[in-house]
Amino acid sequence: MSAIPYNLSLIGIGTGNPKHLTLEAVEALNAVDLILIPNKGAGKDDLAALRQAICAEVIRAPGPQIVEFDLPTRDEATRDYHTRVDDWHDAIAAIWWDSMTQALPAGGTVGFLVWGDPSLYDSTMRIADRLHQRGDIAVNVIPGITSIQALTAAHTEPLNQINAAVTITTGRQLRDHGWPATADTVVVMLDGQCSFQTLPPQGIQIWWTAYAGMTNEISISGPLSEVTEKITTTRARARADHGWLMDIYMLRRSAP
Amino acid sequence: MSAIPYNLSLIGIGTGNPKHLTLEAVEALNAVDLILIPNKGAGKDDLAALRQAICAEVIRAPGPQIVEFDLPTRDEATRDYHTRVDDWHDAIAAIWWDSMTQALPAGGTVGFLVWGDPSLYDSTMRIADRLHQRGDIAVNVIPGITSIQALTAAHTEPLNQINAAVTITTGRQLRDHGWPATADTVVVMLDGQCSFQTLPPQGIQIWWTAYAGMTNEISISGPLSEVTEKITTTRARARADHGWLMDIYMLRRSAP
Repeated sequence: MSAIPYNLSLIGIGTGNPKHLTLEAVEALNAVDLILIPNKGAGKDDLAALRQAICAEVIRAPGPQIVEFDLPTRDEATRDYHTRVDDWHDAIAAIWWDSMTQALPAGGTVGFLVWGDPSLYDSTMRIADRLHQRGDIAVNVIPGITSIQALTAAHTEPLNQINAAVTITTGRQLRDHGWPATADTVVVMLDGQCSFQTLPPQGIQIWWTAYAGMTNEISISGPLSEVTEKITTTRARARADHGWLMDIYMLRRSAP
Repeated sequence: MSAIPYNLSLIGIGTGNPKHLTLEAVEALNAVDLILIPNKGAGKDDLAALRQAICAEVIRAPGPQIVEFDLPTRDEATRDYHTRVDDWHDAIAAIWWDSMTQALPAGGTVGFLVWGDPSLYDSTMRIADRLHQRGDIAVNVIPGITSIQALTAAHTEPLNQINAAVTITTGRQLRDHGWPATADTVVVMLDGQCSFQTLPPQGIQIWWTAYAGMTNEISISGPLSEVTEKITTTRARARADHGWLMDIYMLRRSAP
């Protein structure tokens, strides 16, 4: 028996503004046989509902079948970070496979709506890679607007200085290793802890945005020494109000 | 006399694939009164023609007025790089102003089609800033797909490793300063000289793409020690064939 053939389209959808969708993404969402949408469970975040709303807005009838699946949680008992993430990706891949084979037993095309862009701090490509051992899998990526671009657009501020480098990093990296050596501009993602507070604030500017690109977007910028408290307070209030929060920020250090 | 009011929309258009346009960009291109398109002169590159083609494809009649202007050249006699760029931006801002006031003497909305995204190695925001001294200027940015996302999509390869940082830099920086300290993944833009050849190639993987996202896209990847010559040869031939070339690459170093 030959392996069942699936073509997976990993479709970048931008950061929650349905108008971030590219014409290519709209075309791909209409072209697939099945769309799989992860569901984290009630009260977690609005992302399943948002993905459904985006589909409702751009897909023409009859459109592909849309199936939600319950996203497993990471096993916090696994102490090693990389092992914990690896196990979690294995579990998601197994659920994808079950959902795909149930909805499309003879194979077909499957679309995934990926927040931002599939290449940037997203697991979808790595999870898709795990399916090669199960079926005859082809993967294609449709680029999407990242939260970095939504951030710089919100502040009307260039990412780089002229001919200068930019470092993209995570909250965990910033806490563990401090300001990246040789960097002038640093973009921090995946930071649940306002890790900019761990830096000596002198000479650093910050551009911070929550819900970048969405209707409830909030932006604060200024010298880190002056706006830190405003950001942490605003962030805590927004998180309490919405039940979830996504934020991103850029830091720039004046030449010493 | 009060200053003439202009609203400038800096519209990211992606990297040459008209389907990279977002729904927001299509809306903005239709909403402005005037679109300004730079023209480098015959034989330079296809970008003016490409911008015109994108407008023709997504703008509904009657649509905004579209005006091409001759892009000045940088004065290579100015030895300091930053001064040379600053002077050039001043000259472009003056031409923008003349074109705007001629087409819209009472003010209005002006759109600029920006390759990739307006925040990333692009001068449009800095040139727009220069107009505040001339008129009553508001600027808004519409994010677009960058060549980084077109590169990673072309290779179906994530930008970052799990929880790891990424450095975006220029060919000049790579030549002058070598591999950025502490970086695992480096994306190199604005490199006319295949500057990866200046690195000791051992342990480095490269993902290289020319014309990312366009119909004539070319991609090569592999160990730097094995594919360097293939890339430089392919690049030289493509440049000769098309008369112009845009390329970008990602380098990843195995943990030492």
